[in-house]
Amino acid sequence: MRSVLRFELQAVCPVTGARAGLLHTAHGVVETPVFMPVGTQAAVKGILPRILESDLDAKIILANTYHLYLRPGHETIRRLGGLHKFMAWPRAILTDSGGFQVFSLSRLRKISEEGVLFRSHLDGDQHLFTPESTIDVQIALGSDIMMVLDECLEYPASHEAARVSMERTLRWARTAYAHYRARCQNEGVVEACACFPIVQGSMFADLRRCCAAELVQLDADGYAIGGLSVGEPRALSLEMTEVTTPILPTDRPRYVMGVGMLEELPEYVARGVDMMDCVLPSRNARNGYLFTSAGPVIIKQTQYKDDPRPVDEACSCYTCREFSRAYLRHLFLAGEMTYSTLATLHNLRRYLDIMREIRQAILVGKFPEYLKSV
Amino acid sequence: MRSVLRFELQAVCPVTGARAGLLHTAHGVVETPVFMPVGTQAAVKGILPRILESDLDAKIILANTYHLYLRPGHETIRRLGGLHKFMAWPRAILTDSGGFQVFSLSRLRKISEEGVLFRSHLDGDQHLFTPESTIDVQIALGSDIMMVLDECLEYPASHEAARVSMERTLRWARTAYAHYRARCQNEGVVEACACFPIVQGSMFADLRRCCAAELVQLDADGYAIGGLSVGEPRALSLEMTEVTTPILPTDRPRYVMGVGMLEELPEYVARGVDMMDCVLPSRNARNGYLFTSAGPVIIKQTQYKDDPRPVDEACSCYTCREFSRAYLRHLFLAGEMTYSTLATLHNLRRYLDIMREIRQAILVGKFPEYLKSV
Repeated sequence: MRSVLRFELQAVCPVTGARAGLLHTAHGVVETPVFMPVGTQAAVKGILPRILESDLDAKIILANTYHLYLRPGHETIRRLGGLHKFMAWPRAILTDSGGFQVFSLSRLRKISEEGVLFRSHLDGDQHLFTPESTIDVQIALGSDIMMVLDECLEYPASHEAARVSMERTLRWARTAYAHYRARCQNEGVVEACACFPIVQGSMFADLRRCCAAELVQLDADGYAIGGLSVGEPRALSLEMTEVTTPILPTDRPRYVMGVGMLEELPEYVARGVDMMDCVLPSRNARNGYLFTSAGPVIIKQTQYKDDPRPVDEACSCYTCREFSRAYLRHLFLAGEMTYSTLATLHNLRRYLDIMREIRQAILVGKFPEYLKSV
Repeated sequence: MRSVLRFELQAVCPVTGARAGLLHTAHGVVETPVFMPVGTQAAVKGILPRILESDLDAKIILANTYHLYLRPGHETIRRLGGLHKFMAWPRAILTDSGGFQVFSLSRLRKISEEGVLFRSHLDGDQHLFTPESTIDVQIALGSDIMMVLDECLEYPASHEAARVSMERTLRWARTAYAHYRARCQNEGVVEACACFPIVQGSMFADLRRCCAAELVQLDADGYAIGGLSVGEPRALSLEMTEVTTPILPTDRPRYVMGVGMLEELPEYVARGVDMMDCVLPSRNARNGYLFTSAGPVIIKQTQYKDDPRPVDEACSCYTCREFSRAYLRHLFLAGEMTYSTLATLHNLRRYLDIMREIRQAILVGKFPEYLKSV
């Protein structure tokens, strides 16, 4: 039994295995490969949802189960008609399982076979996330693509610790999936929510392969690769991706969680990845780091004080069409929130434009050349 | 000699003297009475200029000479093509003279006949504002409507102190005006900048009348009433306005600086005022105080936790069309900047809608009834 989610493969690069496709969701079609802007607390920081649509043409965004569970609470969101309505975002939403945030933000976590007991980073209250409960939370949110609960190991970890953790993640995935399927069978309505298991295994190729092979048995709508971007060298993150994707079914989307740097996007795509997300473009924007086709612009630098040029002369976003580097520098130094909006708009546009370029290169059979040129 | 600014009186309420008109500027026509959103540092906090146009249809905004003089500097803005281009705002801009901020923000100010010596609130550097220099700064910004330098007294002040101060403000206004006219005659281009003198006189009707009568001799394009909203009872601010406006020429716009509360807008209009500005709608928005047709909504209150209703059911702004009180409360508590954008958008819309209602009532001859109904 599968959800409404359907992945249509349009082109595969014969040299690299890079893929272009269409992900049909209950909230519209997503062109892949895709970079998903992050809307942690039911808002992409500084960007109104209508601008995500009109200016960025984002087709899917990510929201965080951990944050929304704690505040305002998934039951509140469910009562108000679900996350799409709550945040006025009519297109697709992917939610993580909260696993990553439990391990990075909360205090006093205690892992057992049942799940993970943790204290909220907001008020210290104790909560339990189980494979079943995180599915329930995401169904209440009305997510288009849910993630199963996984354990995120810090880097480095021993092979033994990674194996024990990966096996628990595997058992949790089976439990979560059984629960998800039971709810789908009992309540047809939740079929709109697809559910991806997550491949773990730290930086050990054998564990990654083993985990992937086991998860494929679930016949899921798509597969995620988690536990990367946790401090390891970037070559290792790419290597772990590379050993995993060949094991995953070609007709399902693959999502690498939490990556990446701008220059890494084509590298992941070259390893058969279809979906990515990262806070980097928006966080860097707020911190004054702007991505351009000619390299980074650190906007606070004195050299931009009287610079009449746009952030990126090759960019056609609102920020670059209407405003100078001098103006952005002024807003940044003055602490004006309009700076964050304009900077985020530009950085996200850059990420999304790069992904559109990549997709186009794959569709026209020029991806190997594209990869060499960047 | 007059600037390009032209005020066209369309209707006057025979009972109250309230006026509806059109203010023709070099950057478009402004329907009066008008409330001007405040863009202190060349940005209306949280609102992109294109949204000021598309959503609020604001025709004129205010910017602060003191702030822009200190950062990024008026010469930087001039080199970049002026304030309109710098902030991508194609419509009219009014700038204050910096007088109010010197007296409220800066340290160690020392007033002399020449001007006011002050230390920047940013870095402690010493600066001198003179009647001439503040005109030069505003011409460099490319303001549509400039203000002359005035002295803002704290409240309360003795009659003697108020008289001495008002007389200096008067001398400064004459000096500023002579300088402004000389620059206009020498450089035709600056004629696009109109210049308003400011009536002072603390809370003494005789001083206000005397100041206004003297300033009328300048045959200015319009007149401002300053030194209000400095802590005095509201009845007194209205009274000072009431004694001043009859002395001002009927064919020139009148601007009361820094007012007011939402419910005061029709009161000022009823006293013959055409233009107002205040940080209240935007600052209150950011602090969680929302104006509605049914009274204030303090958005953090628990009663709104699950409230699916818009902030104001009678409002058609983007915020009220798309989002619930519950969502705004969530964003406010989560510290998301999207909250400030949505809240400011609503509060400014409320202010501008009220002014449009007032204008309409004057045009159709129903302003006395309108005034009674609020």
